[in-house]
Amino acid sequence: MQRRQFLKTAGFGAAGVAAAPFVATAHAQETYTWDMVTSWPKNFPALGTGANDFARRVEELSNGRMRIRVHGAGELVPALEVFDAVAAGTAEMGHSTPYYWRGKVAASQFFSAVPFGMTTTEMNAWIYHGGGQELWDEVYANHNLKPFAVGNTGPQMAGWFKKEINSLADMQGLRLRLPGLAGEAMNAIGVSTVNLPGSEIFTSLQTGVLDAADWVGPYNDMAFGLHQVADYYYTSVWNEPCALVETMINLDVWNELPEDLQAVIREAARASNLAMFTEFAFHNAQALETLVDEHGVQLRTFPDDVMQALFEASQQVIQTQTENDEESRRVYESYSSFQQLMRPFSDIGEYAYFKGRDAIGA
Amino acid sequence: MQRRQFLKTAGFGAAGVAAAPFVATAHAQETYTWDMVTSWPKNFPALGTGANDFARRVEELSNGRMRIRVHGAGELVPALEVFDAVAAGTAEMGHSTPYYWRGKVAASQFFSAVPFGMTTTEMNAWIYHGGGQELWDEVYANHNLKPFAVGNTGPQMAGWFKKEINSLADMQGLRLRLPGLAGEAMNAIGVSTVNLPGSEIFTSLQTGVLDAADWVGPYNDMAFGLHQVADYYYTSVWNEPCALVETMINLDVWNELPEDLQAVIREAARASNLAMFTEFAFHNAQALETLVDEHGVQLRTFPDDVMQALFEASQQVIQTQTENDEESRRVYESYSSFQQLMRPFSDIGEYAYFKGRDAIGA
Repeated sequence: MQRRQFLKTAGFGAAGVAAAPFVATAHAQETYTWDMVTSWPKNFPALGTGANDFARRVEELSNGRMRIRVHGAGELVPALEVFDAVAAGTAEMGHSTPYYWRGKVAASQFFSAVPFGMTTTEMNAWIYHGGGQELWDEVYANHNLKPFAVGNTGPQMAGWFKKEINSLADMQGLRLRLPGLAGEAMNAIGVSTVNLPGSEIFTSLQTGVLDAADWVGPYNDMAFGLHQVADYYYTSVWNEPCALVETMINLDVWNELPEDLQAVIREAARASNLAMFTEFAFHNAQALETLVDEHGVQLRTFPDDVMQALFEASQQVIQTQTENDEESRRVYESYSSFQQLMRPFSDIGEYAYFKGRDAIGA
Repeated sequence: MQRRQFLKTAGFGAAGVAAAPFVATAHAQETYTWDMVTSWPKNFPALGTGANDFARRVEELSNGRMRIRVHGAGELVPALEVFDAVAAGTAEMGHSTPYYWRGKVAASQFFSAVPFGMTTTEMNAWIYHGGGQELWDEVYANHNLKPFAVGNTGPQMAGWFKKEINSLADMQGLRLRLPGLAGEAMNAIGVSTVNLPGSEIFTSLQTGVLDAADWVGPYNDMAFGLHQVADYYYTSVWNEPCALVETMINLDVWNELPEDLQAVIREAARASNLAMFTEFAFHNAQALETLVDEHGVQLRTFPDDVMQALFEASQQVIQTQTENDEESRRVYESYSSFQQLMRPFSDIGEYAYFKGRDAIGA
């Protein structure tokens, strides 16, 4: 609140416009300095550094006409108040992930990560070619926001468990950190889920408050030292086959931005989308090697009955949400029919290649 | 040659610099108009349109300071003379794929597509994080060129066959259109390969000059009507698990470009890299559905003994090349050790997800 008043006093209505160091003959070249609030600790691997990279791209591509000041979670607003802060104009833009807002906008879930849903490639195809961006624009415009995809984590692992899981029975009563739709699906099969900030996972596993915890993947999980407090790494990919990272811009500010700077943000976001996904892929591969070779981590996958139960529970949880919320229904219809379109080519393309490479020992 | 003389006469030494429509106080803002020669027919699906999209991004992001005139194959120079034309300065930049130059630069193969090699994600990780770009810069700098990744086809199919293949014996003596290392591997297992321009494939299959032909994937293959002249579509992914599309810039021109426009080209290329890959994924999925549902195309995969023989032959062909060419050896050592690093995470990530989705009937 103080922050917002400060911005108003400082002339926020003018969107941070200042005199430019060079002047065109046709019209004044204005410069813009924006604040970007994020849901990540400052410089957090891949997510926080991804926010920095995006800001740097915008500055470079605008040739200095637009500067973005990146704020870590809690610096201007808490991690989970990014959506409200940008909608209200407390900051011009944010960097987060859509399902953090599902308590407020249930349909936002489908722009992030869906249990047993689309892969990164399928999701990008939906956003850029399948009507996903248009639906997302509509949903966010109701909250005075304009969104773009600005990164992706790629496939996420199921998480760290203190004991081995050999059947569905072993899941009963486990205390597991897992937020969102996937957490609801876990509850439905007898697990007791909680949501805790990432920074509390290590201690909660160590002290026995948790039996198991999901975080992201090898790179981010190793950064928190989770391998030191749980013996088994369940790598099963189910809850987040990909997770889209977003940037959102206050819609009033966006609408007043010159077209060329709109293009800079749009294309910097597209470049950053690939850059973050690639960074995750590279660092996850490196971290996986370190976890296994240097820390002796035991890799495991869920038994078939657990995966089957999670799939059925996930379908049920999604069905309940789409029955109760018209916007969710409309978005999920587009999402799921697009997933069906993409699936056969994913299967004869990437999937078949992985299988073939495996079968011949390549 | 005429073209080059024209450019020289027109003051090519000044790299197309013209007076800008606006003037900065600190220094003159020069505008640039470049020619981009391509290896694709003008507006060819995904490849030619990808060249157009990249040019549009550069123009938008530079706010009109840089314009790129896109030329289809044969307009200024033939498809396979792009490398030489840009190296010589006949055009400032090109849009092609590195393995087209393997007769001149054997190592270029490894920056495009390698039989049983890296996927799109693994390849991007090598280029951006694994030293791939630096090696590529070195190899191309010897030819007065600066390269960037500007797209990817994603996984390509094995191709169209007039008869079913039920064993390795069925491959003997087949006349197959397949260029490059993969073509050499096919020759080693008893197939008789030729290289023909894409535009000649349809007629060659129709008249029986060819028994089979590889082109790209559902989107591009359907555009040529290949389903009308061969009954079986072998979707096995082996020869091009991905194929990187490049832009290359004359190194003298590149070195004289202001830093901010260098950033525009670099980031427009990165955005275009994702955009083309996504476009291929979407349109391949659509075309696959049309081929199967509307044209009744029969999908097939090679039997195990064919895949195994192709893998062994590919390894042999690569080994011969790297033994005979020091530059190839150095590049392939980096490529293959990076593929080994990436493989375990690809396997527990994307591959495991595809398998899991398949197993539970998701």
